[in-house]
Amino acid sequence: MYRDLHQHLALLEEKGLLLRVKQPIQKETEIHTLVRWQYRGGIPEAQRKAWLFEDVFDAQGRHYKIPVTVGALAGSPQIYALGLDTDVDGIEKVWQTAFRNPIAPVIVEQGRVQEEVHLGDDVKRLGFEEFPTPISTPGFDNAPYTTCTHWFTKDPETGIRNVGNYRGHIKARDRIGVYPMMGQHIIIHWDKAKAKGQPLQAALVVGAPPVVSYAAVQKVPFGVDELAIAGGLARQPIPLVKCKTVDIEVPADAEIVFEGLISTEWLEPEGPFGESHGYMHPRQYNPFMDVTAVTHRKDAIWVSWISQVTPSESSVIKKSGYETMFYEHLRYTCSIKSVKRVVMHEPLTNLRKFIVIQMSKPGETDVWRALHQAATFHQGVGKIVVAVDEDIDPTNTDAVLWAMCYRMKPHLDVHIISGMEKGHGPPFKFNEEGTEDVISFYNPANDSAMLINAIQKEPLPPISLPKREYMEHAKEIWEELGLPPIKEEPPWYGYSLGQWSEELDEEAKLAVEGRHFETGEKLKARRRRA
Amino acid sequence: MYRDLHQHLALLEEKGLLLRVKQPIQKETEIHTLVRWQYRGGIPEAQRKAWLFEDVFDAQGRHYKIPVTVGALAGSPQIYALGLDTDVDGIEKVWQTAFRNPIAPVIVEQGRVQEEVHLGDDVKRLGFEEFPTPISTPGFDNAPYTTCTHWFTKDPETGIRNVGNYRGHIKARDRIGVYPMMGQHIIIHWDKAKAKGQPLQAALVVGAPPVVSYAAVQKVPFGVDELAIAGGLARQPIPLVKCKTVDIEVPADAEIVFEGLISTEWLEPEGPFGESHGYMHPRQYNPFMDVTAVTHRKDAIWVSWISQVTPSESSVIKKSGYETMFYEHLRYTCSIKSVKRVVMHEPLTNLRKFIVIQMSKPGETDVWRALHQAATFHQGVGKIVVAVDEDIDPTNTDAVLWAMCYRMKPHLDVHIISGMEKGHGPPFKFNEEGTEDVISFYNPANDSAMLINAIQKEPLPPISLPKREYMEHAKEIWEELGLPPIKEEPPWYGYSLGQWSEELDEEAKLAVEGRHFETGEKLKARRRRA
Repeated sequence: MYRDLHQHLALLEEKGLLLRVKQPIQKETEIHTLVRWQYRGGIPEAQRKAWLFEDVFDAQGRHYKIPVTVGALAGSPQIYALGLDTDVDGIEKVWQTAFRNPIAPVIVEQGRVQEEVHLGDDVKRLGFEEFPTPISTPGFDNAPYTTCTHWFTKDPETGIRNVGNYRGHIKARDRIGVYPMMGQHIIIHWDKAKAKGQPLQAALVVGAPPVVSYAAVQKVPFGVDELAIAGGLARQPIPLVKCKTVDIEVPADAEIVFEGLISTEWLEPEGPFGESHGYMHPRQYNPFMDVTAVTHRKDAIWVSWISQVTPSESSVIKKSGYETMFYEHLRYTCSIKSVKRVVMHEPLTNLRKFIVIQMSKPGETDVWRALHQAATFHQGVGKIVVAVDEDIDPTNTDAVLWAMCYRMKPHLDVHIISGMEKGHGPPFKFNEEGTEDVISFYNPANDSAMLINAIQKEPLPPISLPKREYMEHAKEIWEELGLPPIKEEPPWYGYSLGQWSEELDEEAKLAVEGRHFETGEKLKARRRRA
Repeated sequence: MYRDLHQHLALLEEKGLLLRVKQPIQKETEIHTLVRWQYRGGIPEAQRKAWLFEDVFDAQGRHYKIPVTVGALAGSPQIYALGLDTDVDGIEKVWQTAFRNPIAPVIVEQGRVQEEVHLGDDVKRLGFEEFPTPISTPGFDNAPYTTCTHWFTKDPETGIRNVGNYRGHIKARDRIGVYPMMGQHIIIHWDKAKAKGQPLQAALVVGAPPVVSYAAVQKVPFGVDELAIAGGLARQPIPLVKCKTVDIEVPADAEIVFEGLISTEWLEPEGPFGESHGYMHPRQYNPFMDVTAVTHRKDAIWVSWISQVTPSESSVIKKSGYETMFYEHLRYTCSIKSVKRVVMHEPLTNLRKFIVIQMSKPGETDVWRALHQAATFHQGVGKIVVAVDEDIDPTNTDAVLWAMCYRMKPHLDVHIISGMEKGHGPPFKFNEEGTEDVISFYNPANDSAMLINAIQKEPLPPISLPKREYMEHAKEIWEELGLPPIKEEPPWYGYSLGQWSEELDEEAKLAVEGRHFETGEKLKARRRRA
């Protein structure tokens, strides 16, 4: 089901997931701080909302015609699932379908995103100033940055489209810096344009239809059109229109587009900006774009998201796709049949660093293959990787630690692998002038990964919880007593892990029947001298 | 403030922390399963209650005169704090005071615990059958076990008292097995009695005044009287009465006492029993006691607690004292001044296995001293030990993992130490007959510990959250909007970790004032050729 952002917001409101703020809110210091409390203020996930700020003003007292939404795309898993026209449990299936059945976009003649077109002096005079871009990390960020901004480019040789989501550092009404992390595909286009002695044509899209945003943040193989994946998510082609000043097509129903040329001749300092790894990302020399046109809907809405300390909107939006990709790689590309699930740990650790692989009775070599693959599949991803059994809930960090504490001997089951890079995040090392991070560009192999085999290796006694039938019976009494609703947390009943016998089972049965003195007599007969 | 169990339950009820269950409840399969849902059913800590089952019946249809309470001593930190006559924040201080100012008990002539006295044939005919002992882990346990049972013994040479809490396996109306874990002080008494060719006199106390229970579960140095610590907790001496058939004194206001002789000539199979490490603890040859007298109050209440998969009552009751002891050891005995706090991780991991040490700007050797000390201070405690900085909340596992992911390089900062034992928990290895765990008795050094230095080692950029003043201001708006109450989760604002400059600070200030184009111009002047 294809929806533009306006339709998506209407649906969120209908489901009680949109919070409208009518009172005047300042874009520099109030928007992101307010929404951030939703993630650092102990608010349960189910209570998290998408926010729509209807009356935004700035530090200089100017009120904007255009409202700002934050959290609308993935403020919670529920919001994200709604954008995919499914529920939380259905997310994985929608992604699998999209990856396996992409639908190419279609070019249309007209699009609402071009209801208003600003060119030439208009851009220089107004440009970004028309839009109420909030500051993400007030007190540390050195400008408003675009966050939910999809950069559309084309391969200068093949013409194949790329869509990636990178922050944009607003430097002038008509100039914006771009931070393309190492390994992003836009860099390949930029290199090819530079080799031809040309700038790279680009369009920066704000407020795309949600499925486009969901596809834009995924890591898909180079050469795969993110818009076809978005079509796969929507189960229909995404309509595109041609830009006014560059040879790029953009979603016809997007809110706002900035067209322009990314210099391949010059770089400019960009940053610092508060990043998803939980630290301020330092300033680096990065490309920038001179804006050649601004187009937007008459009723345009500005979209921002929170991508700093996780959990956040940016982690929710990436998590499902990331986990599915790792799972498909381990299970199918590498054919490790015992792999059941991959979970990228999130609060604070930013999905990339701590990975849990759930496996079903794996052979020991399969465990190590899976651990090594996960630690080296993506650059800078998988610093700590843990393999756990099927009875360990990989989303429950306490359960993962429990497995590490009782099913792992560090001297045998922990391998430390050197030759790794630090990936996206600190520590950073500045150049002599203290202006620029140098490590990130050279990527020295001065970090390491820790692979942890926390799989059960020998029979263990049953989990010390009552048998399932007794727990289920007690749940009925619990409900009769009118107590607060139960949400089962595994493990919530006992089960055997191999070290149990018929005799012990019989004794347990006698005990429940009140016949434990019979067992006591039997044990008395087995006395030994001390 | 000294209170007996009846007074404590009245106080819990007054504070809304007691749940009375009037409907008939079966002791074998319903009591512990019901309370267990409180810990495995997603019930928030603040909603956990002490339970009082007023009408208990057994598998054979017999109803008991005596009610059963579970969770009354430490069903939640709030309940535990009330038993110490303080609030949750005051727990640590009460313990420090008690350790530093113990108050010796006083012997009195009469005690309510002896309102009813059963001797000789009375014991053989009724004994344990008078009391509705629940089954802790129905389906696996082979009998009802006493759980909140304090074993009182005296050193056969010095007469110095010991009180320890060990499970009791009810085998006959007048016989109970005891499981004294390796390293418990009762073993020293037992060895001395055996050397003298005598049985060990003992009294098993159920339903002691809460401060006695709190002291009984602590690990205090050998020779320190737990009852003097209990007196320190109550700020007054604990009244004791002499037993009827053994040379032992017990709390005058306890609910129930079983007096008896622990054989030093014979051992008997004891267990299996579901233990706090999360697994069924296997059967072992252990001592047992022949009961010589039963005494109890006329209005006696049976006390049971949940000590299986943590979090549970038994982990709440141990946690504060355990952490204080490790802290005092590291900070004072070892004089590691940078140690700020020690946290024993709990859900599932049972306090013993995963320890977090919070330190303030420690030297690197202090970090390693603290890690080694924590891993080897107590037998089988400290398999994974992590040192974190002062800005990391050691009670928040996600924050600890975050520190491990960004402030630790495994090949430099992880040391694996061999020569360790597995401690309390699996894996177990049975003897040839499959009846008995043999590893636990020989304690081979076939496990290891992992020490992790996750302390910040070089300057890092600020945490990517808005400055404190902006978050605080946003909290006011949040409250104006009438949104759900905020509970701050650290980190909830950004702060510098050394890698920040005056220039960047100035830029951030300009940005908040809406003057970021000035910074844009400055950066333009620093362009470099790509």
